[in-house]
Amino acid sequence: MKKAVILLSGGLDSTTTLAIAKHQGFECYALNFDYGQRHRAELDAAKRIAGQLDAREYRIIKFDLSSIGGSALTDESIEVPDQPTEGIPVTYVPARNTIFLSIALAWAEVLQATDIFIGVNAVDYSGYPDCRPEYIKAYENLANLATKAGVEGQRFHIQTPLMDLNKAQIIQLGIKHGIDYAQTVSCYAADKEGRACGVCDACRFRAAGFNEAAIEDPTRYI
Amino acid sequence: MKKAVILLSGGLDSTTTLAIAKHQGFECYALNFDYGQRHRAELDAAKRIAGQLDAREYRIIKFDLSSIGGSALTDESIEVPDQPTEGIPVTYVPARNTIFLSIALAWAEVLQATDIFIGVNAVDYSGYPDCRPEYIKAYENLANLATKAGVEGQRFHIQTPLMDLNKAQIIQLGIKHGIDYAQTVSCYAADKEGRACGVCDACRFRAAGFNEAAIEDPTRYI
Repeated sequence: MKKAVILLSGGLDSTTTLAIAKHQGFECYALNFDYGQRHRAELDAAKRIAGQLDAREYRIIKFDLSSIGGSALTDESIEVPDQPTEGIPVTYVPARNTIFLSIALAWAEVLQATDIFIGVNAVDYSGYPDCRPEYIKAYENLANLATKAGVEGQRFHIQTPLMDLNKAQIIQLGIKHGIDYAQTVSCYAADKEGRACGVCDACRFRAAGFNEAAIEDPTRYI
Repeated sequence: MKKAVILLSGGLDSTTTLAIAKHQGFECYALNFDYGQRHRAELDAAKRIAGQLDAREYRIIKFDLSSIGGSALTDESIEVPDQPTEGIPVTYVPARNTIFLSIALAWAEVLQATDIFIGVNAVDYSGYPDCRPEYIKAYENLANLATKAGVEGQRFHIQTPLMDLNKAQIIQLGIKHGIDYAQTVSCYAADKEGRACGVCDACRFRAAGFNEAAIEDPTRYI
């Protein structure tokens, strides 16, 4: 059975990505990060989801990005916007996906897995630079130069099955795979029980997706 | 004053790199990692050196790569070789420089620094893939795609002033900049006081460098 490392934050996108990887026949190693994020309810959600979707292993790597700050998600003094803003929003976390993928790459190399799944998409998204296809392509190139496995001829693949889907399509695909989206937490300002604010970027994209897909939104709101 | 983030492990190469960055007129933000490494004496050395070389700030980011393992430096069950080995040695830590550079990139973006210094070299080295110029070039390309600053037109530079120098040249350059190499710890199996084993790869390259440079080796050996 081919192994894959799946970045699993416990949100709608990464949960759908895990379901897709499982459906493609991968033995799934789910990886999450406790990086000092404001919305810590996603950690509980991810653990639950990894169990429900039969991940072979679920691992959390802890490191403190709040000491670096620079984002509404890691710096308590910057508020999560409750309305759309111009350009790349303040919820952008500097180099976050690059750090996440790098630790995933380390684990993949040790596991002898060649596939890393990440639930980025470039349709219904906040404009984060590290969600774009050109970024992913550059990362894949880097992964093969960075590693012993790459030098020895193994090819790493960064799999982004949601890249070209809109939120409604992602939800429809997930429902087909049996996902219970009530279990997932997307909100940037979720409370301790994982209930969503309903007004942040992540909540807005999610709610619009359920609306467009004509599927009842199971999100628990505050 | 232009700011730069300097990866500072407390070894010979990174210390020389910090001295070069300082000499070039950068305000230096030194970054080190407590990643579960076996040779923890380097953490004390780095802190001392950052102070001696007037780094504006010295910061340690902690995360546990020993839970991922796969290297003699992060897995206690794999011994550090006391003789040269064929190919990429077991002291290779999967994706280490990629993780280090990614966290450095995050800090650089928050500091509005465009330069990141890393003391890799591809002459007297262990053959680690993430020390080669093609890897660094790919990382620089990635950094500019990954970040908000990059999208907004800022260019990140990964500076590798030691890339083409042999160990003797690095030492001569460092001496010129006033470095006291007795303060640095390169050894993979250093004891708690920072005394070196004398037989690991890092020790061998270092001792040969002092020998070739005809400079007395100030390293404290066990």
